[in-house]
Amino acid sequence: MLEKFRIKDEDTVLVKHGFLQTTVASIFNKLGVNPEDSESGSEVLVEADLRGVDSHGVSNQLRSYVKGYQEGRINPTPNWRIIRESPSTATIDCDGGLGIILTPKAMDLAIQKAKITGVGMVTMRNSRHLGMAAYHAMRALKYDFIGLCMSATGTPLVLPTYGQEAMLGTNPISIAIPAGKEHPFVLDMATSSIAANKIQLAKRLGIELSGGWIAEPNGNPIMDKIPAQEIGTGPGGTGYPPVLLPLGSSREMGSHKGYGLGCMVEILCGILSGGGFSLLGDRDHYKHMVAAYDIEAFSPLQEFKETMDEFLHSLKSSKPAEGQTRVMVPGQPEFEEKTERLSKGIPLHIEVITWFRKTCSELEVECLF
Amino acid sequence: MLEKFRIKDEDTVLVKHGFLQTTVASIFNKLGVNPEDSESGSEVLVEADLRGVDSHGVSNQLRSYVKGYQEGRINPTPNWRIIRESPSTATIDCDGGLGIILTPKAMDLAIQKAKITGVGMVTMRNSRHLGMAAYHAMRALKYDFIGLCMSATGTPLVLPTYGQEAMLGTNPISIAIPAGKEHPFVLDMATSSIAANKIQLAKRLGIELSGGWIAEPNGNPIMDKIPAQEIGTGPGGTGYPPVLLPLGSSREMGSHKGYGLGCMVEILCGILSGGGFSLLGDRDHYKHMVAAYDIEAFSPLQEFKETMDEFLHSLKSSKPAEGQTRVMVPGQPEFEEKTERLSKGIPLHIEVITWFRKTCSELEVECLF
Repeated sequence: MLEKFRIKDEDTVLVKHGFLQTTVASIFNKLGVNPEDSESGSEVLVEADLRGVDSHGVSNQLRSYVKGYQEGRINPTPNWRIIRESPSTATIDCDGGLGIILTPKAMDLAIQKAKITGVGMVTMRNSRHLGMAAYHAMRALKYDFIGLCMSATGTPLVLPTYGQEAMLGTNPISIAIPAGKEHPFVLDMATSSIAANKIQLAKRLGIELSGGWIAEPNGNPIMDKIPAQEIGTGPGGTGYPPVLLPLGSSREMGSHKGYGLGCMVEILCGILSGGGFSLLGDRDHYKHMVAAYDIEAFSPLQEFKETMDEFLHSLKSSKPAEGQTRVMVPGQPEFEEKTERLSKGIPLHIEVITWFRKTCSELEVECLF
Repeated sequence: MLEKFRIKDEDTVLVKHGFLQTTVASIFNKLGVNPEDSESGSEVLVEADLRGVDSHGVSNQLRSYVKGYQEGRINPTPNWRIIRESPSTATIDCDGGLGIILTPKAMDLAIQKAKITGVGMVTMRNSRHLGMAAYHAMRALKYDFIGLCMSATGTPLVLPTYGQEAMLGTNPISIAIPAGKEHPFVLDMATSSIAANKIQLAKRLGIELSGGWIAEPNGNPIMDKIPAQEIGTGPGGTGYPPVLLPLGSSREMGSHKGYGLGCMVEILCGILSGGGFSLLGDRDHYKHMVAAYDIEAFSPLQEFKETMDEFLHSLKSSKPAEGQTRVMVPGQPEFEEKTERLSKGIPLHIEVITWFRKTCSELEVECLF
């Protein structure tokens, strides 16, 4: 079923990631971002595309970033600063800078702290979108550290259990953990049952929605499939408002857990950083939290990696359910996708290619594809 | 629907928590636990009963602990020791000691470290059951710290997404966060869609199971209601094996997220502490992780508490779904229950009262009710 969301091959062009990354960096640079930050931001976006996380790559996100810079909602030259600090912690005010550019800096700070005390944890306020949360968590992997990243997204889209009003962002949680011979464990999940853009995508493609994703206008979970054309445009519009159910979907199936995790992200990213919560701020105001754990501070690294290999291998070689071909572990589909896309290129929809050429032409930068 | 799991009033006796706690401490003490640890362990158990978390209070857990001590599976005088340490971290080998007694010590160590560096994080291996995870997370509240507790439970009971074999424990996650005038935020959730003992309880009481809780023997999620008598006794037995689905229940509704969180708990508690993972160890081997965050290390405490009050109040005063009376926040039902039980007493089933009197008589300790 999830295959339905994939772009059909005939509508795509394969672009080598190097060309894509250089072009994206040129766009950022032209919008006023310094060269180093432009490079770093383009790496975050293209890494999402390489991993097959198209929702967080250039196709969806870049145009919203370009618009944000052009409309003055994202600050290209933020005076970001550490406003509070202790040996293992820091809070950063991002001065309206883009999360994909500032979160790697925050993670590097968390890693520096973890090198000294074993754990580093940094909260960020007044930021903008951070792209694929997994990128930032995975940044800890090259130090053989565990990386964690959460983000309180600006727009309330998710219902509390038994609620009728959207009160929480989709609030993703990501954790990246190194292994030995196996690929790293990388979890990256919204705390809603489905990503927000899947609803709009289903509507655009005319695909039936699965049960457990959205609610009736009266707040009660819709647990049966519904036709895409019945999805409305928002509160007060016609059809079902596209507010999302928390992970777990209904109280009986544990939606209070997804709701609770969503609240936890609001608090650890937003309230702990002094950035408030989604309902208070404007939709551009994102709050984040990153953390790094030095494995050696808990156990011998080599032993840890060997046990990780055993654990991941056990899961992957366990018996699949009838009708399924294999059991996968978090991070595995993306790892496999990246291997393929590194060699074959990143499939971009022709409409995205057109947008790139038009945007590059308007900004007078070179489009390398 | 969840009300069905409550004990009917006519079958219960109300017991004052002080009498219950003293009696439980006497039992622990008689089983070889020192007086101080006996007190501490009884506090953890009775706190679960006070909060209405009966599944983790004296009724279910105490008899399994008594049996564990009597059969030599729990060590009453563990030589627990810190085997690795850094300014913000530690790993403890618990020497087979009971988690309800040793986890408070680990949390106190995490708090000590957080006082100095801002964050403390302690993993524990070779432990036994830790009772209600929320107790340990909440221990940080009196310092105005955020507390976190996870536990990798010994027995594989939860299926991976698309899997047919139970590979993970129910692996709870708890986080406790202080507020100002509002009660604290306390999330305590298994990473399965339903707690394991709810399945057995439904079977005993002859209650229909909700969809999304368990799987067909071939691993495919059962998304419709099923009669309790169709639940089997385990792999190879008749009926549906009582293996649990991860939070999210089916792939479409996000079970890969619950599965991913379950894996995360296995790794942070088990592999990070050097204690391995559930599939490797024996069923008595529990692994835990606790952490404490000093709020002041990130933001001014008073401001944090005021924003927490605003956040919790916003959620609680948001419009309920049709047919529901109110929106609650994590920790609220337990807080309300505790207020009532502190004054009225803890309702214990007559069968539990009988067990207490018999056990006290056998152990030659006084039963105070």
